[in-house]
Amino acid sequence: MQPTTTASTRINIDGERLWRSLMDMAAIGPSPNGGSRRLALTEEDIAGRLQFRQWVEALGCRCRLDEAGNLFVRREGRDTSLAPVAFGSHLDTQPLGGRFDGVLGVLAGLEILRSLHERDVRTRRPLELVVWTNEEGSRFAPAMGGSGVYAGRLETSDFFRAEDADGIRLADALEASAQRGDLPLGTPVLDAYFELHIEQGPALEQSGDPLGVVTGVQGIRWFDVRISGQSAHAGPTPMSHRRDPLLAAADGLVAIRDDVEADPSGDARLTIGELKVTEPSRNVIPAEVNLTIDLRHVDDTRLDELEAMLYRRLDAAASKAGVSVDIERRWRSPVTPFDPDLIASLDTAARERGLSLPHMMSGAGHDAVNVSHVAPTVMLFTPCRDGISHNEAEFAEPEHCALGAQVLCDAILARANRA
Amino acid sequence: MQPTTTASTRINIDGERLWRSLMDMAAIGPSPNGGSRRLALTEEDIAGRLQFRQWVEALGCRCRLDEAGNLFVRREGRDTSLAPVAFGSHLDTQPLGGRFDGVLGVLAGLEILRSLHERDVRTRRPLELVVWTNEEGSRFAPAMGGSGVYAGRLETSDFFRAEDADGIRLADALEASAQRGDLPLGTPVLDAYFELHIEQGPALEQSGDPLGVVTGVQGIRWFDVRISGQSAHAGPTPMSHRRDPLLAAADGLVAIRDDVEADPSGDARLTIGELKVTEPSRNVIPAEVNLTIDLRHVDDTRLDELEAMLYRRLDAAASKAGVSVDIERRWRSPVTPFDPDLIASLDTAARERGLSLPHMMSGAGHDAVNVSHVAPTVMLFTPCRDGISHNEAEFAEPEHCALGAQVLCDAILARANRA
Repeated sequence: MQPTTTASTRINIDGERLWRSLMDMAAIGPSPNGGSRRLALTEEDIAGRLQFRQWVEALGCRCRLDEAGNLFVRREGRDTSLAPVAFGSHLDTQPLGGRFDGVLGVLAGLEILRSLHERDVRTRRPLELVVWTNEEGSRFAPAMGGSGVYAGRLETSDFFRAEDADGIRLADALEASAQRGDLPLGTPVLDAYFELHIEQGPALEQSGDPLGVVTGVQGIRWFDVRISGQSAHAGPTPMSHRRDPLLAAADGLVAIRDDVEADPSGDARLTIGELKVTEPSRNVIPAEVNLTIDLRHVDDTRLDELEAMLYRRLDAAASKAGVSVDIERRWRSPVTPFDPDLIASLDTAARERGLSLPHMMSGAGHDAVNVSHVAPTVMLFTPCRDGISHNEAEFAEPEHCALGAQVLCDAILARANRA
Repeated sequence: MQPTTTASTRINIDGERLWRSLMDMAAIGPSPNGGSRRLALTEEDIAGRLQFRQWVEALGCRCRLDEAGNLFVRREGRDTSLAPVAFGSHLDTQPLGGRFDGVLGVLAGLEILRSLHERDVRTRRPLELVVWTNEEGSRFAPAMGGSGVYAGRLETSDFFRAEDADGIRLADALEASAQRGDLPLGTPVLDAYFELHIEQGPALEQSGDPLGVVTGVQGIRWFDVRISGQSAHAGPTPMSHRRDPLLAAADGLVAIRDDVEADPSGDARLTIGELKVTEPSRNVIPAEVNLTIDLRHVDDTRLDELEAMLYRRLDAAASKAGVSVDIERRWRSPVTPFDPDLIASLDTAARERGLSLPHMMSGAGHDAVNVSHVAPTVMLFTPCRDGISHNEAEFAEPEHCALGAQVLCDAILARANRA
């Protein structure tokens, strides 16, 4: 039989096989309550990557690592001189993460490669399935590091020098796990990049849509805040004499939360993921508190205003409490629009499957945001139960995963086979 | 020469020798910035106790340990059948503690024994200088444990089973350090107990008084608070869908602080010494926050009211944020009045040295509070710089230390020699 090569060919992916590979991957680095724990470049993350490589190598694909440990899985096209159509996501997880965040995008890609392989279909352009390094940022800050250095959005020195809580540098973790390759950063250059991902929010579940086309990603700003006061004994020190950094933090955070909740768009987000008291002791006023702030919005101008408010609120709380506050903006990711042609290609693919999909902005940062600066990029979301992710309870319905992989497959084939 | 034995004898203590012994003790377990770190029953605490035992044994005193590791240093009286007059404090410190908290009371006692020894003065009643175990409670909760079980104010099982952060039980730490003695708890029975201590607050420094007579100790309540919400991704989860335990904690703490600061007496105190986020990650809404609350007042009725407010404030904040809150009262120490005769004895001793001392309530808990339930008890305070304690910067002027030891000595001799 001649390989089928026309652009109109429709390939049906195997939703059950996709689900089995998701469950198989979840068994690598299982967390206590049914989630996964594969922090970037740990033993568990590497075990996940090795399993994945066995799967794609069985399809005759070629694996290459770039200098940041990003893994590119190439399925050759009929015209090897053309830039490849890429798709993928990440396999690393949060400390108590779920089975779908990132993993779905990678294994949907695997399912597409398997479906093409078993039907012996070859696309005009080459395909590249990408596994980005350290997307979560839980072990090494900042997040989306691998795609960041690939796209020139993150300084390579900041990437390689990042240290985990044990003082291990990312560069050393890459070497130790043999994940540092020789493909130069920024290569291969991509014709397009598609990323399928769980929504990580409640919108699709609430609207009842099985998928959503993502038109862009909200802006994200990360801050490190240090509040320094005066340690003193809990009993004899009158409230009026205290310089309590923890109550100052509480005061400032409540004020910032009120600002964020008052945002009329409903699109502002405030998260304090870390808060640490130095030398905690129950009958001692702490000397110092360190905390992180994650601030997001779909509108950069509004985000500027909220950031200015954040500084004012913390300064006011610190001033009132007689403590000092030091705020460092660690990271800034602007609002990012995705590629109109690729957005249209997902709409078309969905329509041909009888679906009309809503357009939405992503609330989470994704590797796709970085890649969008160097290649036309789009994302496709599946609903996730109760909008919960970064959590062991994270769940996506098998039929939504399958449908996402199918629409992704259709759009990728159309892109890769276009004249 | 016949020993001098009349009740009217005045003994002058040696302030410089007292200061030297304070500085020598501070050199055991020194902390980075000039304070001390001798957590209860650690190597450093034991080293401090051994140094102290060498000093008192050189004076011919006999050391005995009770079952809780409380160290009783006996200087025999002329009538060995009489209950002893006791004085002392503790040698253990906070993680980053000062050179005076507790240590001053013990080493002022040493200085009194040395002064009596060099003048060969023998009191009618025996004297007992006491070093209580685990006063600070930083390593093993609750605080004032040794005096607590001595006075029957703390269950022995709660004392012995207390675990430190590494899971080491206090009972095992006592055995391992050979500090568990055979003197039954509650013995010896005391005729009186005096405790000299730094104020750990700013009142004496502000009034300019060199000492203060303590008429009682404020009530203290300790709470463990667990706030449980729902972990989720920082980006896509709208504020209205969140169940964020950290922002709920901030909200509740600000409300409680406002209640405490609004107390018209100015005698209410609120301290959050520990606050911990489980599985912290900067782009994840935390699932759970645990924190401690230390609430104090000089009036038990008012403290009851504040405690009721505390429950209401946390419940309201939790309800508003859609999280659950669990509050456990770990410890309750009622307002404790000291012995009127002993208060008068300090007033007399001070007057005979030309001083008129203010009366004050203690803001901190002390071993004296426990002992006051089984023996007439009083405390004497020295000022401390800026009211700061539980801090490496803690400082008491040498002349205040000396004057405190002197007034203490005079009152002890009067008590021990009374008919």
